[in-house]
Amino acid sequence: MGSYQFQDLTYLFNPRSIALVGASDRPNSIGGHALANITDHSDFDGELFLVNPTKPEIGGRKCYPSVAALPQAVDVAVIVIPAAGVVQAVEEAAAKGISFAVILTSGFSEADDEGKAAEERLKQIVANTGIRIYGPNCPGLCNINRRIGMTFSPAFKDDLRKGPIGLATQGGGLGRNLMQAMDRGAGFALWSSSGNEADLQVADFIHYMAGADDIKVIVTLIEGIKDGPRFMEALAHAARRGKPVVGLKVGRSEYGAKAAQSHTASITGSAEVNSAVFRQLGLIEVDDIDELIDVAALLARRVPQGGEEVAVFASSGGAASLCADNVGTAGIRLARFAPHTTKALKAALPDYAAIDNPVDTTSVTISNPKAFSDALLPVAEDPNVGLVLCPIAMDYGKYTEVSASLIVEVQSRTQTPICPIWMSDRLGSGYRVLDHAGITPFRSLRNMGKAVRRWIDYGAWRSRADLAWTPLAMAGGVPPAPQSVRALSEIEAKAELAAAGIPTTKAKVAVNAEEAGAIADLMKTPVAMKIVSPEILHKSDVGGVVLDVRGGEQAKSAFDRIVDAVKSAEPKARITGVLIEPMAPPGGLEAFIGVSRDLVFGHVMTFGLGGIYVEIFKDVTRRVMPVTNRHAGEMLEELRCWPLMKGARGRPPRDLESLKKFIVAVSDYVAANADRIEEMDLNPVWVGAEGQGAFALDAVVMVRA
Amino acid sequence: MGSYQFQDLTYLFNPRSIALVGASDRPNSIGGHALANITDHSDFDGELFLVNPTKPEIGGRKCYPSVAALPQAVDVAVIVIPAAGVVQAVEEAAAKGISFAVILTSGFSEADDEGKAAEERLKQIVANTGIRIYGPNCPGLCNINRRIGMTFSPAFKDDLRKGPIGLATQGGGLGRNLMQAMDRGAGFALWSSSGNEADLQVADFIHYMAGADDIKVIVTLIEGIKDGPRFMEALAHAARRGKPVVGLKVGRSEYGAKAAQSHTASITGSAEVNSAVFRQLGLIEVDDIDELIDVAALLARRVPQGGEEVAVFASSGGAASLCADNVGTAGIRLARFAPHTTKALKAALPDYAAIDNPVDTTSVTISNPKAFSDALLPVAEDPNVGLVLCPIAMDYGKYTEVSASLIVEVQSRTQTPICPIWMSDRLGSGYRVLDHAGITPFRSLRNMGKAVRRWIDYGAWRSRADLAWTPLAMAGGVPPAPQSVRALSEIEAKAELAAAGIPTTKAKVAVNAEEAGAIADLMKTPVAMKIVSPEILHKSDVGGVVLDVRGGEQAKSAFDRIVDAVKSAEPKARITGVLIEPMAPPGGLEAFIGVSRDLVFGHVMTFGLGGIYVEIFKDVTRRVMPVTNRHAGEMLEELRCWPLMKGARGRPPRDLESLKKFIVAVSDYVAANADRIEEMDLNPVWVGAEGQGAFALDAVVMVRA
Repeated sequence: MGSYQFQDLTYLFNPRSIALVGASDRPNSIGGHALANITDHSDFDGELFLVNPTKPEIGGRKCYPSVAALPQAVDVAVIVIPAAGVVQAVEEAAAKGISFAVILTSGFSEADDEGKAAEERLKQIVANTGIRIYGPNCPGLCNINRRIGMTFSPAFKDDLRKGPIGLATQGGGLGRNLMQAMDRGAGFALWSSSGNEADLQVADFIHYMAGADDIKVIVTLIEGIKDGPRFMEALAHAARRGKPVVGLKVGRSEYGAKAAQSHTASITGSAEVNSAVFRQLGLIEVDDIDELIDVAALLARRVPQGGEEVAVFASSGGAASLCADNVGTAGIRLARFAPHTTKALKAALPDYAAIDNPVDTTSVTISNPKAFSDALLPVAEDPNVGLVLCPIAMDYGKYTEVSASLIVEVQSRTQTPICPIWMSDRLGSGYRVLDHAGITPFRSLRNMGKAVRRWIDYGAWRSRADLAWTPLAMAGGVPPAPQSVRALSEIEAKAELAAAGIPTTKAKVAVNAEEAGAIADLMKTPVAMKIVSPEILHKSDVGGVVLDVRGGEQAKSAFDRIVDAVKSAEPKARITGVLIEPMAPPGGLEAFIGVSRDLVFGHVMTFGLGGIYVEIFKDVTRRVMPVTNRHAGEMLEELRCWPLMKGARGRPPRDLESLKKFIVAVSDYVAANADRIEEMDLNPVWVGAEGQGAFALDAVVMVRA
Repeated sequence: MGSYQFQDLTYLFNPRSIALVGASDRPNSIGGHALANITDHSDFDGELFLVNPTKPEIGGRKCYPSVAALPQAVDVAVIVIPAAGVVQAVEEAAAKGISFAVILTSGFSEADDEGKAAEERLKQIVANTGIRIYGPNCPGLCNINRRIGMTFSPAFKDDLRKGPIGLATQGGGLGRNLMQAMDRGAGFALWSSSGNEADLQVADFIHYMAGADDIKVIVTLIEGIKDGPRFMEALAHAARRGKPVVGLKVGRSEYGAKAAQSHTASITGSAEVNSAVFRQLGLIEVDDIDELIDVAALLARRVPQGGEEVAVFASSGGAASLCADNVGTAGIRLARFAPHTTKALKAALPDYAAIDNPVDTTSVTISNPKAFSDALLPVAEDPNVGLVLCPIAMDYGKYTEVSASLIVEVQSRTQTPICPIWMSDRLGSGYRVLDHAGITPFRSLRNMGKAVRRWIDYGAWRSRADLAWTPLAMAGGVPPAPQSVRALSEIEAKAELAAAGIPTTKAKVAVNAEEAGAIADLMKTPVAMKIVSPEILHKSDVGGVVLDVRGGEQAKSAFDRIVDAVKSAEPKARITGVLIEPMAPPGGLEAFIGVSRDLVFGHVMTFGLGGIYVEIFKDVTRRVMPVTNRHAGEMLEELRCWPLMKGARGRPPRDLESLKKFIVAVSDYVAANADRIEEMDLNPVWVGAEGQGAFALDAVVMVRA
């Protein structure tokens, strides 16, 4: 597997002993809040040492004047002193043998050059001593299930709802936003908020949470990923442990990327590449922060199989229709009820109720609540139903409270998730019933549709995931961008590709018209001719390309025409000859394959059909490399123009087996030359009908100079 | 303008006198609630008469035994008696001269055949007497600003927040969902909920609200549109009055359409056609119910100009980044601050704050709230800023309350809308501050992005709207589908098109090989030849088409080949000849134009490029007809493949002027034959380079038989 060794963080999250460096007796100070959070609002039963050079004791606890003066090592030093003293405190902690420093203090790389330098010092201490650093510039670390708060946040005392969700964020504000989903029924095990990430990163916490028994689902909100391979390894580990990871990456637009970069001082990276990495490693990417909880809470309730169909169960015809509408637009399927379900619904509900899926009980349930549960249970237990949606359009006071209680009661009798959607802005007693029961209601039909669809898709991903696959960069790391790159000549590039088993047109170079004629005659097929000159990149623009040349005589005159045109357009260009290669047979489809090296995640392949498909419709798909044969197949199917490749509307299907082999051969070639290749552009790749193969007509390969 | 006469509904919404038919003294009955809503929860100072045959009086008010027995006509009879007595009550009301019957009772067309028959009777009474009916099967009508509730809903007493939004729904459940946005700061003027719409429809209420002085924005949620022209007229009226209409149509997916149809017994119509109608008449269509309020509340605060740029103002770097990200993905532009704004921000905020847009004040505002308002006001007053977004990631108790109060305070000093986004599930005192101030906070960044984008787009629409444009169907109505249709032959169709000034290939029919040869010779260009037979629709399939025929000799032999092939494939087909027409010149782009007749909205044009653009990418756009030259231009620009038409990447631009003229000529032809044409398919339409024109290569025209 990869090169980064994850450290066991058990005693960071569950310290047996803590030193609070900067403890204060002023109640509204950072040090005062941090102390109260450990002593008053935690169930921490380990040893606690206070460091404060100006006080002999605080609240009856002895204060030590410095970290160096502590009587023993501890698991965690929580540091809340001003920035100027932090480096020394961490040095002393390392010398003392303290395992972890949680640095809440701000004023480091996010602030100014002095802060950047101090943060570099912290990194050196880590490298030299083995102490691990959490932060700086973060609100702290909260273990909710174990009830230990190493944080200055006065809100920690209200963060009471324990549960199965592990939360890993960088910034504190967005993390707290997610924690406040506790008010909607979501329960949390842990919250790590790693700030500037001088050392430990979101990846480390995802890795830890993947191994934590009390965590079923991991939620992460990321502003910038500093170490791509480490992040990918953490995701791969979570996948192998069967722990779903739900994530949102800030920086999906130019504005967001720029803002996040200035906020976190990390590279935000290309949104498209990030999404490709996430998809490939099973991270469930969402579009907005509120969706994180929607998806996570659902996953915590039940692990999907993939292919689930749903039921809609409402007491209002309008809500039933609108919910079914959202099911449809989200691409989810409504289940067809089994006959015994229909029979039970007929028995439970009045004649005028709608007993097909979507079910509209009508308002009969106001006067007869029993009808509600008598109808809901058989729907949930129907063998075709994987999940039940209960849209609640309005808060009708006590009536809604009764329905909510019945949902909770029926849920206790079935394994099928019953998911209320609380659509109203009025959050009355019914909402509280759902909240208290830990049934996190969706707050909009659209979010429901997105979350349920992602839940089902995760099940499908999981069922076919290749858990042994390892990204190139996980093995080799990602080196920085080179000082300079150079392009191989077309003839060099094609020769390398051919040697690597990647089919290309067989090109030869003629140095004079006679040779051109001889080569063209030998090829016995119409040829393309292109100028060969290291100075000329855009060959057509200078008259350097002639297509569809037939026979030796035409080739001779084409040679002269090309050389004359180029000499006249670019008098200083060195001309080494004219490349001659067979024209592609007519009737092929033109694909393109690009390879780039992302500075966070390493080599990435982009694939699509050429021409207008890319230019106008941006119909491309991406993979972190290596790309396996199965990945290649998935890439083809992900394109909107997949029907064209399959042979839509009577067109002959393309040679997809050859195309997949071609893609894998490119990936193998890049893997074997990963330290050298910066960029590749095979465009077009000619794809024939079944049996005709696929080969590159043109090839640009950029390597480190 | 159109044919439907809207009646003045002033005394329906503001009755001077009411008769409550079915008043009851049982407090939890429908009749009891309806009575209490008028007497206890309304400020109704007009005359109220009660009808109840079994009681002499209720609560000190005399009861009349029947509507006929009332001492005088009233403006509105509110009817809550069981379905069996409703028809008679309405007959008596009409005879009495009562203007409006508000029928809350259920059990009509939504229930069974008997109910359908009763509803038909109600329609007849309307037609015969002029009484107007609201309902049946509805929760009633609420005038919030005037405080009159003609409804049985026990929730009416809580519907207290007055305001500028007029709400027109069909079903009650979804309408009440929207009304409960009162708990998020939204204020309502009126709520009409028109149930089965035996007579008055959503369109009538939109029309009324467009003329009501206390209404700034109209919100509508529609399950099915019964009368398309009436609906379009209402929208056109609202547009002329400058009143924005925000709408959601149920039935955007197959599931939703089916469910809504069974719920409301109305045709839901094609979602694509609905959207085209909405866009064309300025209705702002949203994707989910919660967006209705988001958009409406923003429009009520300020009418946009179009092209607004926004500022992001946050106290958390993460929230600022994520908000900027959502601004970017929504296609909104961040404003560049004027120099004096930057100066003011520098003065108000600490060095480490981010003072470019997005602004991150940092948490300094916790200790120094004045910095918050000192920074926010100049941002709002910046000449480049059309709207300020304040993402509030978390509820930080009293600190957030202070920020919320400052937002309200600064808003009172500027015309620029300041829009908080309350992202947390914890709704504390800060949320209540915004709610009470009537500043309806967004509840998610995504909804913010969608709403602000729609707000800006509405401004743009309004600035260029052609308020005089009238849909074809508004003048002529929409007749039902004909019993049968027939296709014109290709030669007939092309002759009709040519006569209407629509360019087509000039086709001739040869009845023998000699004639074919002569025609081909005369055309002096390669020709296409196609079998002419009323029995044969798919000509290629039977060998009935030969392309690229050059000269008379080839044409003669092609004639014989075609006739032989067809005779052998379809021995019984009558062959009337072979059509001969010039081949299209090479290098054209192929477009397609379809016309269909929607049973709700009348003739609709679909336009797109042909081939894979339609098949794979569904890249088409639609307009209710007639289509003007400006519409045609907009249609071209709406297509994703617009760059191809304009001449992307060195390709020659197409003859767009001719294409627009072509589209308008098709529209004129359909308008002149609106009572006859059911369907048209011009596919392909050949579009040449600039100056080469556009003409139909093939034409199918279906007319009423």
